[in-house]
Amino acid sequence: MPPTSETLTAERILATTEEVLRRHGPAKATVVDVARALGVSHGSVYRHFRTKAELRGAVTKRWLDRTTQVLAGIAADGERDPEARVREWFAALFAAKRHKAGGDPELFATYQVLVGDQGEVVGQHIAELTGQLTDIVRAGVDAGVFTAQDPATAARALFQATGRFHDPGYAQEWQQPGVEGEFEAVMDLLVRGLRARD
Amino acid sequence: MPPTSETLTAERILATTEEVLRRHGPAKATVVDVARALGVSHGSVYRHFRTKAELRGAVTKRWLDRTTQVLAGIAADGERDPEARVREWFAALFAAKRHKAGGDPELFATYQVLVGDQGEVVGQHIAELTGQLTDIVRAGVDAGVFTAQDPATAARALFQATGRFHDPGYAQEWQQPGVEGEFEAVMDLLVRGLRARD
Repeated sequence: MPPTSETLTAERILATTEEVLRRHGPAKATVVDVARALGVSHGSVYRHFRTKAELRGAVTKRWLDRTTQVLAGIAADGERDPEARVREWFAALFAAKRHKAGGDPELFATYQVLVGDQGEVVGQHIAELTGQLTDIVRAGVDAGVFTAQDPATAARALFQATGRFHDPGYAQEWQQPGVEGEFEAVMDLLVRGLRARD
Repeated sequence: MPPTSETLTAERILATTEEVLRRHGPAKATVVDVARALGVSHGSVYRHFRTKAELRGAVTKRWLDRTTQVLAGIAADGERDPEARVREWFAALFAAKRHKAGGDPELFATYQVLVGDQGEVVGQHIAELTGQLTDIVRAGVDAGVFTAQDPATAARALFQATGRFHDPGYAQEWQQPGVEGEFEAVMDLLVRGLRARD
Protein backbone atom coordinates (compact mmCIF):
# COMPACT_ATOMS: atom_id res chain seq x y z
CA MET A 1 0.00 0.00 0.00
CA PRO A 2 1.26 3.51 -0.74
CA PRO A 3 2.12 5.70 2.24
CA THR A 4 -0.78 7.51 3.89
CA SER A 5 1.29 10.25 5.55
CA GLU A 6 -0.02 12.82 3.04
CA THR A 7 -3.24 14.47 4.19
CA LEU A 8 -6.30 12.90 2.59
CA THR A 9 -7.84 15.86 0.74
CA ALA A 10 -10.86 15.82 -1.56
CA GLU A 11 -8.52 16.68 -4.46
CA ARG A 12 -6.27 13.66 -3.69
CA ILE A 13 -9.32 11.39 -3.60
CA LEU A 14 -10.57 12.78 -6.92
CA ALA A 15 -7.19 12.47 -8.65
CA THR A 16 -6.99 8.85 -7.48
CA THR A 17 -10.60 8.21 -8.50
CA GLU A 18 -9.72 9.33 -12.03
CA GLU A 19 -6.81 6.87 -12.10
CA VAL A 20 -9.02 4.07 -10.78
CA LEU A 21 -11.68 4.85 -13.38
CA ARG A 22 -9.03 4.78 -16.09
CA ARG A 23 -7.74 1.41 -14.87
CA HIS A 24 -10.99 -0.41 -14.06
CA GLY A 25 -13.45 1.38 -16.35
CA PRO A 26 -16.56 3.25 -15.19
CA ALA A 27 -18.68 0.13 -14.80
CA LYS A 28 -16.34 -1.69 -12.42
CA ALA A 29 -14.55 1.04 -10.42
CA THR A 30 -15.68 1.03 -6.76
CA VAL A 31 -15.06 3.19 -3.70
CA VAL A 32 -13.10 0.27 -2.21
CA ASP A 33 -10.75 0.40 -5.24
CA VAL A 34 -10.22 4.12 -4.65
CA ALA A 35 -9.54 3.61 -0.93
CA ARG A 36 -7.11 0.77 -1.67
CA ALA A 37 -5.18 2.89 -4.19
CA LEU A 38 -4.92 5.64 -1.56
CA GLY A 39 -3.95 3.21 1.22
CA VAL A 40 -6.86 4.31 3.41
CA SER A 41 -10.11 2.73 4.60
CA HIS A 42 -13.20 3.25 2.47
CA GLY A 43 -14.69 5.01 5.52
CA SER A 44 -12.06 7.74 5.07
CA VAL A 45 -13.21 8.28 1.50
CA TYR A 46 -16.87 8.39 2.60
CA ARG A 47 -16.02 11.16 5.07
CA HIS A 48 -15.32 13.38 2.01
CA PHE A 49 -17.95 11.98 -0.36
CA ARG A 50 -21.01 10.52 1.29
CA THR A 51 -21.97 8.17 -1.54
CA LYS A 52 -20.42 6.59 -4.61
CA ALA A 53 -22.78 8.75 -6.70
CA GLU A 54 -21.48 11.90 -5.00
CA LEU A 55 -17.88 10.84 -5.68
CA ARG A 56 -18.65 10.16 -9.33
CA GLY A 57 -20.44 13.51 -9.63
CA ALA A 58 -17.45 15.32 -8.09
CA VAL A 59 -14.90 13.64 -10.36
CA THR A 60 -17.05 14.44 -13.40
CA LYS A 61 -17.33 18.08 -12.32
CA ARG A 62 -13.53 18.22 -11.86
CA TRP A 63 -13.04 16.93 -15.41
CA LEU A 64 -15.50 19.44 -16.86
CA ASP A 65 -14.10 22.31 -14.76
CA ARG A 66 -10.65 21.93 -16.35
CA THR A 67 -12.17 23.37 -19.54
CA THR A 68 -14.28 25.99 -17.75
CA GLN A 69 -11.28 27.56 -16.01
CA VAL A 70 -9.35 28.24 -19.24
CA LEU A 71 -12.45 29.79 -20.81
CA ALA A 72 -13.24 31.95 -17.78
CA GLY A 73 -9.98 33.83 -18.31
CA ILE A 74 -10.91 34.63 -21.91
CA ALA A 75 -14.47 35.65 -21.01
CA ALA A 76 -13.25 38.01 -18.27
CA ASP A 77 -10.55 39.70 -20.36
CA GLY A 78 -12.12 43.15 -20.74
CA GLU A 79 -9.03 44.42 -22.58
CA ARG A 80 -9.82 42.51 -25.76
CA ASP A 81 -12.71 43.47 -28.04
CA PRO A 82 -15.82 41.31 -27.72
CA GLU A 83 -15.72 39.88 -31.24
CA ALA A 84 -12.16 38.60 -30.75
CA ARG A 85 -13.18 37.25 -27.36
CA VAL A 86 -16.13 35.27 -28.78
CA ARG A 87 -13.90 33.75 -31.46
CA GLU A 88 -11.10 32.97 -29.04
CA TRP A 89 -13.50 31.54 -26.45
CA PHE A 90 -14.99 29.07 -28.93
CA ALA A 91 -11.59 28.23 -30.43
CA ALA A 92 -10.33 27.44 -26.90
CA LEU A 93 -13.42 25.33 -26.15
CA PHE A 94 -13.00 23.37 -29.40
CA ALA A 95 -9.25 22.94 -28.78
CA ALA A 96 -9.82 21.74 -25.20
CA LYS A 97 -12.45 19.21 -26.30
CA ARG A 98 -10.32 17.92 -29.19
CA HIS A 99 -7.35 17.63 -26.88
CA LYS A 100 -9.35 15.64 -24.33
CA ALA A 101 -10.87 13.37 -26.99
CA GLY A 102 -7.73 12.82 -29.07
CA GLY A 103 -5.03 12.95 -26.38
CA ASP A 104 -6.47 10.31 -24.06
CA PRO A 105 -9.35 8.54 -25.85
CA GLU A 106 -9.80 5.93 -23.10
CA LEU A 107 -10.24 8.52 -20.36
CA PHE A 108 -12.51 10.52 -22.66
CA ALA A 109 -14.69 7.44 -23.24
CA THR A 110 -14.75 6.80 -19.49
CA TYR A 111 -15.94 10.32 -18.78
CA GLN A 112 -18.58 10.10 -21.52
CA VAL A 113 -20.16 7.27 -19.51
CA LEU A 114 -20.05 9.35 -16.33
CA VAL A 115 -21.36 12.45 -18.10
CA GLY A 116 -24.32 10.41 -19.33
CA ASP A 117 -25.25 9.61 -15.71
CA GLN A 118 -24.65 13.10 -14.33
CA GLY A 119 -27.39 15.24 -15.90
CA GLU A 120 -27.31 17.78 -13.09
CA VAL A 121 -23.52 18.24 -13.11
CA VAL A 122 -23.57 18.61 -16.90
CA GLY A 123 -26.46 21.08 -16.72
CA GLN A 124 -24.50 23.24 -14.27
CA HIS A 125 -21.43 23.04 -16.50
CA ILE A 126 -23.39 24.21 -19.56
CA ALA A 127 -25.03 26.97 -17.50
CA GLU A 128 -21.57 28.15 -16.41
CA LEU A 129 -20.27 28.18 -19.98
CA THR A 130 -23.28 30.01 -21.40
CA GLY A 131 -22.99 32.43 -18.46
CA GLN A 132 -19.44 33.26 -19.56
CA LEU A 133 -20.64 33.73 -23.14
CA THR A 134 -23.49 35.95 -21.94
CA ASP A 135 -20.90 38.23 -20.31
CA ILE A 136 -19.02 38.56 -23.61
CA VAL A 137 -22.20 39.23 -25.61
CA ARG A 138 -23.34 41.82 -23.06
CA ALA A 139 -19.94 43.54 -23.23
CA GLY A 140 -20.32 43.67 -27.02
CA VAL A 141 -23.83 45.14 -26.77
CA ASP A 142 -22.60 47.72 -24.24
CA ALA A 143 -19.72 48.63 -26.57
CA GLY A 144 -22.15 48.99 -29.49
CA VAL A 145 -20.47 46.31 -31.61
CA PHE A 146 -23.09 43.57 -31.08
CA THR A 147 -26.86 43.66 -31.42
CA ALA A 148 -28.81 41.28 -29.16
CA GLN A 149 -32.21 41.83 -27.61
CA ASP A 150 -31.34 39.44 -24.83
CA PRO A 151 -27.64 38.53 -24.36
CA ALA A 152 -28.50 35.28 -22.52
CA THR A 153 -30.70 34.10 -25.41
CA ALA A 154 -28.01 35.01 -27.93
CA ALA A 155 -25.36 33.22 -25.84
CA ARG A 156 -27.45 30.03 -25.71
CA ALA A 157 -28.02 30.24 -29.48
CA LEU A 158 -24.27 30.64 -30.05
CA PHE A 159 -23.55 27.65 -27.84
CA GLN A 160 -26.15 25.46 -29.53
CA ALA A 161 -25.14 26.56 -33.05
CA THR A 162 -21.54 25.45 -32.37
CA GLY A 163 -22.44 22.06 -30.85
CA ARG A 164 -20.69 20.22 -33.65
CA PHE A 165 -17.40 21.60 -32.30
CA HIS A 166 -17.85 20.85 -28.61
CA ASP A 167 -20.59 18.25 -28.12
CA PRO A 168 -18.78 14.94 -27.41
CA GLY A 169 -21.26 13.15 -29.68
CA TYR A 170 -19.33 14.68 -32.58
CA ALA A 171 -15.87 13.68 -31.29
CA GLN A 172 -15.22 11.47 -34.33
CA GLU A 173 -15.78 14.45 -36.66
CA TRP A 174 -13.03 16.42 -34.87
CA GLN A 175 -10.35 14.22 -36.44
CA GLN A 176 -11.66 14.69 -40.00
CA PRO A 177 -9.71 16.84 -42.46
CA GLY A 178 -11.45 20.15 -43.10
CA VAL A 179 -13.02 20.44 -39.65
CA GLU A 180 -11.03 23.63 -38.92
CA GLY A 181 -12.45 25.26 -42.03
CA GLU A 182 -15.97 24.16 -41.04
CA PHE A 183 -15.47 25.68 -37.60
CA GLU A 184 -14.28 28.98 -39.10
CA ALA A 185 -17.25 29.11 -41.50
CA VAL A 186 -19.75 28.62 -38.67
CA MET A 187 -17.99 31.21 -36.50
CA ASP A 188 -17.90 33.74 -39.36
CA LEU A 189 -21.64 33.39 -39.87
CA LEU A 190 -22.41 33.66 -36.15
CA VAL A 191 -20.14 36.65 -35.52
CA ARG A 192 -21.70 38.46 -38.47
CA GLY A 193 -25.08 37.68 -36.94
CA LEU A 194 -24.01 39.31 -33.69
CA ARG A 195 -22.66 42.52 -35.22
CA ALA A 196 -24.64 45.69 -34.78
CA ARG A 197 -26.22 47.43 -37.75
CA ASP A 198 -28.59 50.31 -38.34
CA MET B 1 -49.05 -16.27 -48.09
CA PRO B 2 -50.41 -13.07 -49.61
CA PRO B 3 -51.26 -13.09 -53.34
CA THR B 4 -48.36 -12.49 -55.74
CA SER B 5 -50.46 -11.32 -58.65
CA GLU B 6 -49.30 -7.72 -58.13
CA THR B 7 -46.10 -6.93 -60.03
CA LEU B 8 -43.04 -7.17 -57.80
CA THR B 9 -41.63 -3.65 -58.05
CA ALA B 10 -38.64 -2.24 -56.16
CA GLU B 11 -41.06 0.08 -54.33
CA ARG B 12 -43.21 -2.88 -53.17
CA ILE B 13 -40.10 -4.66 -51.92
CA LEU B 14 -38.93 -1.56 -50.05
CA ALA B 15 -42.33 -0.88 -48.45
CA THR B 16 -42.42 -4.49 -47.28
CA THR B 17 -38.81 -4.32 -46.08
CA GLU B 18 -39.78 -1.37 -43.88
CA GLU B 19 -42.62 -3.40 -42.37
CA VAL B 20 -40.32 -6.38 -41.81
CA LEU B 21 -37.71 -4.14 -40.17
CA ARG B 22 -40.40 -2.69 -37.93
CA ARG B 23 -41.59 -6.15 -36.94
CA HIS B 24 -38.28 -8.01 -36.51
CA GLY B 25 -35.89 -5.14 -35.74
CA PRO B 26 -32.83 -4.22 -37.80
CA ALA B 27 -30.61 -6.93 -36.27
CA LYS B 28 -32.88 -9.86 -37.13
CA ALA B 29 -34.68 -8.88 -40.35
CA THR B 30 -33.51 -11.00 -43.30
CA VAL B 31 -34.15 -11.06 -47.03
CA VAL B 32 -36.00 -14.36 -46.50
CA ASP B 33 -38.40 -12.55 -44.13
CA VAL B 34 -39.02 -9.91 -46.79
CA ALA B 35 -39.62 -12.53 -49.50
CA ARG B 36 -41.97 -14.46 -47.22
CA ALA B 37 -43.99 -11.32 -46.42
CA LEU B 38 -44.30 -10.65 -50.18
CA GLY B 39 -45.16 -14.26 -50.96
CA VAL B 40 -42.26 -14.60 -53.41
CA SER B 41 -38.93 -16.46 -53.44
CA HIS B 42 -35.89 -14.70 -52.05
CA GLY B 43 -34.39 -15.02 -55.53
CA SER B 44 -37.11 -12.64 -56.78
CA VAL B 45 -36.03 -10.07 -54.20
CA TYR B 46 -32.39 -10.52 -55.18
CA ARG B 47 -33.25 -9.76 -58.81
CA HIS B 48 -34.07 -6.19 -57.64
CA PHE B 49 -31.44 -5.84 -54.90
CA ARG B 50 -28.32 -7.90 -55.39
CA THR B 51 -27.35 -8.12 -51.74
CA LYS B 52 -28.90 -7.64 -48.32
CA ALA B 53 -26.62 -4.58 -47.90
CA GLU B 54 -27.99 -3.08 -51.12
CA LEU B 55 -31.57 -3.65 -49.94
CA ARG B 56 -30.83 -2.02 -46.59
CA GLY B 57 -29.14 0.91 -48.32
CA ALA B 58 -32.14 1.39 -50.62
CA VAL B 59 -34.70 1.29 -47.80
CA THR B 60 -32.61 3.79 -45.81
CA LYS B 61 -32.40 6.09 -48.84
CA ARG B 62 -36.20 5.84 -49.28
CA TRP B 63 -36.70 6.86 -45.64
CA LEU B 64 -34.32 9.81 -45.94
CA ASP B 65 -35.78 10.87 -49.32
CA ARG B 66 -39.22 11.40 -47.79
CA THR B 67 -37.76 14.48 -46.08
CA THR B 68 -35.71 15.61 -49.06
CA GLN B 69 -38.72 15.79 -51.37
CA VAL B 70 -40.71 18.19 -49.14
CA LEU B 71 -37.67 20.44 -48.79
CA ALA B 72 -36.89 20.42 -52.51
CA GLY B 73 -40.19 22.20 -53.17
CA ILE B 74 -39.33 24.98 -50.73
CA ALA B 75 -35.79 25.36 -52.07
CA ALA B 76 -37.02 25.64 -55.65
CA ASP B 77 -39.79 28.18 -54.96
CA GLY B 78 -38.29 31.23 -56.66
CA GLU B 79 -41.44 33.26 -55.90
CA ARG B 80 -40.64 33.58 -52.20
CA ASP B 81 -37.81 35.78 -50.94
CA PRO B 82 -34.62 33.92 -49.95
CA GLU B 83 -34.73 34.80 -46.25
CA ALA B 84 -38.26 33.41 -45.89
CA ARG B 85 -37.18 30.34 -47.85
CA VAL B 86 -34.19 29.64 -45.57
CA ARG B 87 -36.40 29.92 -42.50
CA GLU B 88 -39.15 27.79 -43.99
CA TRP B 89 -36.71 25.18 -45.24
CA PHE B 90 -35.19 24.67 -41.79
CA ALA B 91 -38.59 24.79 -40.08
CA ALA B 92 -39.80 22.05 -42.47
CA LEU B 93 -36.65 19.98 -41.86
CA PHE B 94 -37.05 20.27 -38.09
CA ALA B 95 -40.78 19.48 -38.31
CA ALA B 96 -40.15 16.42 -40.51
CA LYS B 97 -37.48 15.08 -38.15
CA ARG B 98 -39.60 15.66 -35.06
CA HIS B 99 -42.54 14.00 -36.75
CA LYS B 100 -40.46 10.95 -37.66
CA ALA B 101 -38.92 10.70 -34.19
CA GLY B 102 -42.06 11.40 -32.17
CA GLY B 103 -44.73 9.88 -34.40
CA ASP B 104 -43.22 6.41 -34.72
CA PRO B 105 -40.32 6.11 -32.25
CA GLU B 106 -39.77 2.39 -32.95
CA LEU B 107 -39.37 2.87 -36.68
CA PHE B 108 -37.16 5.91 -36.00
CA ALA B 109 -34.90 3.83 -33.74
CA THR B 110 -34.79 1.10 -36.40
CA TYR B 111 -33.68 3.57 -39.04
CA GLN B 112 -31.07 5.06 -36.71
CA VAL B 113 -29.39 1.65 -36.67
CA LEU B 114 -29.53 1.46 -40.49
CA VAL B 115 -28.31 5.05 -40.86
CA GLY B 116 -25.30 4.18 -38.68
CA ASP B 117 -24.33 1.45 -41.15
CA GLN B 118 -24.98 3.46 -44.31
CA GLY B 119 -22.32 6.16 -44.33
CA GLU B 120 -22.43 6.57 -48.09
CA VAL B 121 -26.24 6.86 -48.32
CA VAL B 122 -26.25 9.39 -45.46
CA GLY B 123 -23.41 11.34 -47.09
CA GLN B 124 -25.40 11.59 -50.32
CA HIS B 125 -28.50 12.67 -48.38
CA ILE B 126 -26.60 15.46 -46.62
CA ALA B 127 -24.99 16.53 -49.91
CA GLU B 128 -28.47 16.75 -51.45
CA LEU B 129 -29.82 18.84 -48.57
CA THR B 130 -26.86 21.24 -48.51
CA GLY B 131 -27.17 21.46 -52.30
CA GLN B 132 -30.76 22.69 -51.88
CA LEU B 133 -29.60 25.19 -49.26
CA THR B 134 -26.80 26.36 -51.56
CA ASP B 135 -29.42 27.20 -54.19
CA ILE B 136 -31.34 29.35 -51.69
CA VAL B 137 -28.18 31.13 -50.48
CA ARG B 138 -27.08 31.77 -54.08
CA ALA B 139 -30.52 33.19 -54.93
CA GLY B 140 -30.15 35.53 -51.93
CA VAL B 141 -26.69 36.65 -53.03
CA ASP B 142 -27.96 37.24 -56.58
CA ALA B 143 -30.88 39.26 -55.20
CA GLY B 144 -28.48 41.33 -53.06
CA VAL B 145 -30.12 40.34 -49.75
CA PHE B 146 -27.44 37.86 -48.60
CA THR B 147 -23.67 38.21 -48.41
CA ALA B 148 -21.66 35.01 -48.86
CA GLN B 149 -18.25 34.64 -50.47
CA ASP B 150 -19.06 31.05 -51.32
CA PRO B 151 -22.73 29.96 -51.15
CA ALA B 152 -21.78 26.27 -50.74
CA THR B 153 -19.58 27.03 -47.72
CA ALA B 154 -22.30 29.19 -46.18
CA ALA B 155 -24.88 26.46 -46.80
CA ARG B 156 -22.73 23.85 -45.07
CA ALA B 157 -22.19 26.23 -42.14
CA LEU B 158 -25.96 26.81 -41.88
CA PHE B 159 -26.60 23.08 -41.91
CA GLN B 160 -23.96 22.34 -39.29
CA ALA B 161 -25.02 25.26 -37.06
CA THR B 162 -28.58 23.89 -36.95
CA GLY B 163 -27.59 20.28 -36.19
CA ARG B 164 -29.33 20.39 -32.84
CA PHE B 165 -32.62 20.63 -34.72
CA HIS B 166 -32.15 17.88 -37.28
CA ASP B 167 -29.33 15.55 -36.17
CA PRO B 168 -31.06 12.41 -34.81
CA GLY B 169 -28.56 12.33 -31.94
CA TYR B 170 -30.57 15.23 -30.46
CA ALA B 171 -33.99 13.58 -30.89
CA GLN B 172 -34.61 13.56 -27.12
CA GLU B 173 -34.14 17.35 -26.99
CA TRP B 174 -36.92 17.83 -29.56
CA GLN B 175 -39.55 16.91 -27.00
CA GLN B 176 -38.28 19.41 -24.40
CA PRO B 177 -40.29 22.54 -23.65
CA GLY B 178 -38.63 25.64 -25.07
CA VAL B 179 -37.05 23.88 -28.05
CA GLU B 180 -39.10 26.00 -30.49
CA GLY B 181 -37.72 29.18 -28.94
CA GLU B 182 -34.19 27.78 -29.12
CA PHE B 183 -34.69 27.00 -32.79
CA GLU B 184 -35.97 30.52 -33.49
CA ALA B 185 -33.02 32.11 -31.64
CA VAL B 186 -30.49 30.10 -33.66
CA MET B 187 -32.31 30.89 -36.93
CA ASP B 188 -32.46 34.62 -36.09
CA LEU B 189 -28.72 34.72 -35.50
CA LEU B 190 -27.94 32.78 -38.68
CA VAL B 191 -30.27 34.78 -40.93
CA ARG B 192 -28.76 38.02 -39.59
CA GLY B 193 -25.35 36.55 -40.40
CA LEU B 194 -26.46 35.95 -44.00
CA ARG B 195 -27.88 39.40 -44.61
CA ALA B 196 -25.98 41.77 -46.84
CA ARG B 197 -24.48 44.96 -45.47
CA ASP B 198 -22.21 47.74 -46.71
